Amino acid sequence: MEQFLSARTRLMKASQVRALLRWVGRDVISLGGGVPDPASFPVDEIQDILREVLSTKAAAALQYAPTEGIDELREELAGFVRRRGIKASFENLLVTSGSQEALDLLGRILVDRGDWIIVENPTYLGALQAFAVYEPHIEGAPMDENGVNVEAVEQALRKASRGGARVKFVYTIPTCHNPTGSTQSLERRKALLELAEEYDTLIVEDDPYSYFTFEGEEPPSLKSMDNSGRVVYVSTTSKLLAPGLRLGWVVADEALVNALAVAKQAVTLQSPTLCQYVLLEALRRSLIEKQLPRIKEIYRKRRDVMLEALGEHMPEGARWTRPRGGMFVWLTAPPKVNLDALLPLALEKYKVAYVPGTSFHVDGSGHNTARLSFSYPPLDSIREGVARLARMIKEHT
Amino acid sequence: MEQFLSARTRLMKASQVRALLRWVGRDVISLGGGVPDPASFPVDEIQDILREVLSTKAAAALQYAPTEGIDELREELAGFVRRRGIKASFENLLVTSGSQEALDLLGRILVDRGDWIIVENPTYLGALQAFAVYEPHIEGAPMDENGVNVEAVEQALRKASRGGARVKFVYTIPTCHNPTGSTQSLERRKALLELAEEYDTLIVEDDPYSYFTFEGEEPPSLKSMDNSGRVVYVSTTSKLLAPGLRLGWVVADEALVNALAVAKQAVTLQSPTLCQYVLLEALRRSLIEKQLPRIKEIYRKRRDVMLEALGEHMPEGARWTRPRGGMFVWLTAPPKVNLDALLPLALEKYKVAYVPGTSFHVDGSGHNTARLSFSYPPLDSIREGVARLARMIKEHT
Repeated sequence: MEQFLSARTRLMKASQVRALLRWVGRDVISLGGGVPDPASFPVDEIQDILREVLSTKAAAALQYAPTEGIDELREELAGFVRRRGIKASFENLLVTSGSQEALDLLGRILVDRGDWIIVENPTYLGALQAFAVYEPHIEGAPMDENGVNVEAVEQALRKASRGGARVKFVYTIPTCHNPTGSTQSLERRKALLELAEEYDTLIVEDDPYSYFTFEGEEPPSLKSMDNSGRVVYVSTTSKLLAPGLRLGWVVADEALVNALAVAKQAVTLQSPTLCQYVLLEALRRSLIEKQLPRIKEIYRKRRDVMLEALGEHMPEGARWTRPRGGMFVWLTAPPKVNLDALLPLALEKYKVAYVPGTSFHVDGSGHNTARLSFSYPPLDSIREGVARLARMIKEHT
Repeated sequence: MEQFLSARTRLMKASQVRALLRWVGRDVISLGGGVPDPASFPVDEIQDILREVLSTKAAAALQYAPTEGIDELREELAGFVRRRGIKASFENLLVTSGSQEALDLLGRILVDRGDWIIVENPTYLGALQAFAVYEPHIEGAPMDENGVNVEAVEQALRKASRGGARVKFVYTIPTCHNPTGSTQSLERRKALLELAEEYDTLIVEDDPYSYFTFEGEEPPSLKSMDNSGRVVYVSTTSKLLAPGLRLGWVVADEALVNALAVAKQAVTLQSPTLCQYVLLEALRRSLIEKQLPRIKEIYRKRRDVMLEALGEHMPEGARWTRPRGGMFVWLTAPPKVNLDALLPLALEKYKVAYVPGTSFHVDGSGHNTARLSFSYPPLDSIREGVARLARMIKEHT
């Protein structure tokens, strides 16, 4: 069958996160996947919503629906993001099949082969996979504890401009970053927006996690500070309600929403109507707002346990981020420790899984880094998993 | 915003079907969209299934799931297609977000720019949209009442071979074709499979409708006659259970399933877990098999009413197909009648909607043809809609 495959297929890489998840069996503790704690799912409420939806509007909820999303849901989502400071109405909203589909569609409508995009380095692996299909040139800008290095973004923009290349967008996860856990400062947000103006480019803001910032003040989204329609905002229900609904949304300039909808027709035609009705009713009942304090508390506790275990077990020379929210801690081991090469040993001998930092880097760097997720394992397993990882690092320094 | 769009976006055409659906308001009778009759939805059973699923396995049903689909569902689907004569096991099954996603993924993993694909002419518009993004050269082979003209397919294969081009696949909807309603004869099915062997190419068999062949015997699927893994079979729950679940499935050689899954990771990551559990439980309860007699009866009656109305109202020189199943009748008006150009008038003056045949043709031909759907309007509206259309055709012959 190999002979039939397209050149693009031969370039696609199966996700390392995914290969990893296969290993997570009986005795391996996984700090790998970014899977939410099922305790955060509002099961009773969803059950109640489904009962009501199927009793009162089954003919609509089980039928085809518009590609952009059902009208009432686009209205409710517009209200939801407005309450978070984003100027948006019905026409600015597109419902997607998770934020993953939004990233694919953005690549599809914006990127011609050779166009530049600028990403944080490291960044979300799924975004790199989504964009890669459209063959952009990808430039990475390094991260620190305050988010992306804005000077590096400007250097990349200047480099593109000198070379006559078109930067289609800067892709950023400004709040509770995946994989690093860092949150962009307000100053950097302003600076990024100014750069987008100056160099006439777009910003794609990916925001799955800001909703559960559990420490300090939640900074405003880039989209809420956007006065010229340059920011495309992407979010998802996966961490707010349940990943099993596979719903996300885009807030963007109406012309972009229209282009995304035409593209979406050829990909999924529409997102599942039944799930859309669940989200619609959840928004009408303010279920997300009601859920948030509980979700924040779940993840704050988990983070605290991980940070405590790291402090207790990690050897001299190891560093890690202290996330204000989200699901991830970014670990930097002493430079000699190759966490990429050590992964098979971690799984076989030390019985702990993590995602090597190289997976998230656009330039193959980050051999001594790893993403540790505190979102899913029981608290005891987080402690024990970190202890196992620390033992391995000590034995290989 | 125009300046940011990719070249491929500027080439994308919004579906005419979709633009049409906007018109369908108060006084326009739509014979346009292929929307199922909500009376065919097993609402009570779906409600019962959802109650059970959320009571007994909510943590799984609302969580992330494997990209290929949940294991138990792949098992059940393999059993389901085996009962229809297809040799398949777990590894040959991929769950998709409707068959539309399957078509996009197939284009993605198989088609390099300039590769050839051969399609029926006319064919399903959504397939043309899905493939077009990957820039194939598309050859059309004409249809008649027994399906695609196999000699024309062979000519196209020979033409490709002479020109040194690679035909990646032949795309066919062999049973209750969309848009023509025709069903391929057994002889042609055998001939198509032989051609695929001889010219070393794949066949993509799109099969949303064969399940409700309501007249005569249902011919075996191409996939059930496939001994070398050359047939990729695509189907959907949209007409069997409900479109609002947005689920489809692919049956293919394991190597292709693996490539499709890697591609799917970057597009939708996975199809909605909750909907997958609904389908799983529906299969376990044999809900589809139990539904089929009822669905067949609904659509048989609708078809009969449309055929009767066509016989009663259409003028001399108009012809139409007599589908054995599915949702569509293909109308050919006298050659002078341009049903493409007349559409705005049909909507405004005659208050009837249809899909002009040109939308389904790869070569812009078919000006005097149209697809008429009998699946959704009430029986009286089918009669009145056909009468209105006939009046327009008479007044413009």
